Amino acid sequence: MWRYRKLLPVPDGPVRYPLPIGGTPLLPVPALRRTLGTPHLWIKDETRNPTASNKDRATALVIEDGLRRGMDTITTASTGNAAVATAFGAAGAGMRAVIFVSTGCRPDKLALMTQAGAHVFRVPAGYAAAVDLSRAAARSFGWLDRNTGANPYTIEAKKTVAFEVWEQLGRRLPDVMIVPVGDGPTLVALDKGFAELVSCGHAGRQPRLIGVQAESCQPLVRAWFGAPAGPAELDPTATVADGIAVVRPAIGDAVLDAVRRGGGAMVAVTDNALLSAVTTLAARAGVGAEPAGAAALAGLARAVECGLVDRSETTVLLVTGREVKAGGGPAGPGRVAVVEGLDEVERALAGAC
Amino acid sequence: MWRYRKLLPVPDGPVRYPLPIGGTPLLPVPALRRTLGTPHLWIKDETRNPTASNKDRATALVIEDGLRRGMDTITTASTGNAAVATAFGAAGAGMRAVIFVSTGCRPDKLALMTQAGAHVFRVPAGYAAAVDLSRAAARSFGWLDRNTGANPYTIEAKKTVAFEVWEQLGRRLPDVMIVPVGDGPTLVALDKGFAELVSCGHAGRQPRLIGVQAESCQPLVRAWFGAPAGPAELDPTATVADGIAVVRPAIGDAVLDAVRRGGGAMVAVTDNALLSAVTTLAARAGVGAEPAGAAALAGLARAVECGLVDRSETTVLLVTGREVKAGGGPAGPGRVAVVEGLDEVERALAGAC
Ligand SMILES: Cc1ncc(COP(=O)(O)O)c(C=O)c1O
Ligand SMILES: Cc1ncc(COP(=O)(O)O)c(C=O)c1O
Repeated sequence: MWRYRKLLPVPDGPVRYPLPIGGTPLLPVPALRRTLGTPHLWIKDETRNPTASNKDRATALVIEDGLRRGMDTITTASTGNAAVATAFGAAGAGMRAVIFVSTGCRPDKLALMTQAGAHVFRVPAGYAAAVDLSRAAARSFGWLDRNTGANPYTIEAKKTVAFEVWEQLGRRLPDVMIVPVGDGPTLVALDKGFAELVSCGHAGRQPRLIGVQAESCQPLVRAWFGAPAGPAELDPTATVADGIAVVRPAIGDAVLDAVRRGGGAMVAVTDNALLSAVTTLAARAGVGAEPAGAAALAGLARAVECGLVDRSETTVLLVTGREVKAGGGPAGPGRVAVVEGLDEVERALAGAC
Repeated sequence: MWRYRKLLPVPDGPVRYPLPIGGTPLLPVPALRRTLGTPHLWIKDETRNPTASNKDRATALVIEDGLRRGMDTITTASTGNAAVATAFGAAGAGMRAVIFVSTGCRPDKLALMTQAGAHVFRVPAGYAAAVDLSRAAARSFGWLDRNTGANPYTIEAKKTVAFEVWEQLGRRLPDVMIVPVGDGPTLVALDKGFAELVSCGHAGRQPRLIGVQAESCQPLVRAWFGAPAGPAELDPTATVADGIAVVRPAIGDAVLDAVRRGGGAMVAVTDNALLSAVTTLAARAGVGAEPAGAAALAGLARAVECGLVDRSETTVLLVTGREVKAGGGPAGPGRVAVVEGLDEVERALAGAC
């Protein structure tokens, strides 16, 4: 990723972040192309990052910045993957990570965070409350704030995906790129990266961006159609795609703008379609993904059905994540606590070694 | 990995295998160095391969060879990771995979294999019997035989790790390299790669190789000491390090020769040491690993204790694998069967679509 540092907010001097990030493959997927009848389909495989998701890019840039400013603690709220990326990235860089998740966060993801030595606070009021607490903690305690959408470096980092796709296609842009959408930075960052390529004169026009959400948590698909979302369309616990199950996306308006600008669209997909996308990716492309990570493939089927994408177009699916396992026990007892307010956070950390 | 194809048994012409393999990072691990007091410690992170283990290298070379010979089915027996690598690699390349595992194989690993569309046969008589069946099937049905140790391409592929380490250290070899040992090809391949570098005049002498096994399944550690192994030292089900729990290693003698030649050693480590190595890797290096994958770190502690390695030496730990999760349901029913003989295999495949 640092290969593009001239276009990133990284001043001169050696990069201190110790884990290599980005430079993920753009796969030609011959067997999947045959199965789908899509001769110019590509997969941008972000699962090849260190913690197997695109969150590693944002984590790396935020920590790089923090290291240069001498900060010793990083905080974020997360649906899971950003927290895992932050826990491992902070461990590699020798920083402390303090993480806030909804009490609904998957136990396997929690185990990964604590294994990497992070302090994890579970927030009963859900993801939005976890974000509020994490941001308040960052302000009160002077911590590095990695919250997605809040810290603009998350978008700067993720825009490098656009640069890589352009280079990997032989310095050309695809017609369409399909992307899972949770809080929005992944899609918005692609739009920014493609826009920079166009304004540098490297490409004529931006690809259409198609954003994908799960049917049972699709605030931005509803907003795209200008229709109100019912409760069954805003239930983050009702979908297997936990990574993108965000009721109030941090930068939802920017997502809709980016999609509109490029002539793209938003689509919703069922859990069955997500699960079958996981299987198809594995069995036809040899790519492992979690349901949220495979959403672009489910979205492709939907987009073709709706006439939004033609099978002959050069289409890139962004596969954003795969679940890894905590291979051993957690780092130690007492690292996970349930909290509702900042004072409890302070007490818990004062008691921890 | 194909960057070294002049030193691999790959004739001219474009590489057909579609998934990028190898080129994994050699990590400087600053925080881990401080914790252990080992200023010249490195981690060669093989978990960055497509299915998160070094098995992807062998799979890629064997399939590349098979594609060139027009073969449509690949078979292997495996403790787990080689099978997962084969299932995903075959899927990516559009080949059929037929896999034989012990009935003790972890359900999560089974789910990954079937998700990638492989046919999986579980063999009650254990891993050695699974190897015999897979090899017999390859002979009878004319399938590509990827069995580790049996197919010499597995070693050719894995020797590229030695070339990468040499390049990544600035064209120098480390003093010591520490490696988990199951069937043996990983260690034997490193020895071969280093030996090729020495005979090409690129290095003066080979690193010492230290092989690591789990205390409860340590046939080669016992053999190294010329001592008989008791039943408690040959129990593959008694350790968390399932990947290296092999009672009769396919190329055990070659392992002992390679270790002896370089002036290395074999060490055994407890399950507690393996689990704590997993945690230390995560919390001090930001590297996720399964217990077998983290064995080199546990082996380092043991080797330092025994005076086999000095903390000031340039030491490379090979982290061989991390567990990934099957993110959705398996590919379909009827893909997994328990078998004892070849005729049952034939019947099961005839019934499958
Ligand atoms: C696997 C996966 N895909 C996609 C996303 C969505 O990314 P964003 O929040 O940038 O829209 C996430 C976010 O957590 C995720 O975990
Ligand atoms: C994680 C892991 N490490 C190490 C090994 C050992 O490799 P080898 O059989 O080449 O000795 C294996 C083999 O399955 C493995 O799965």
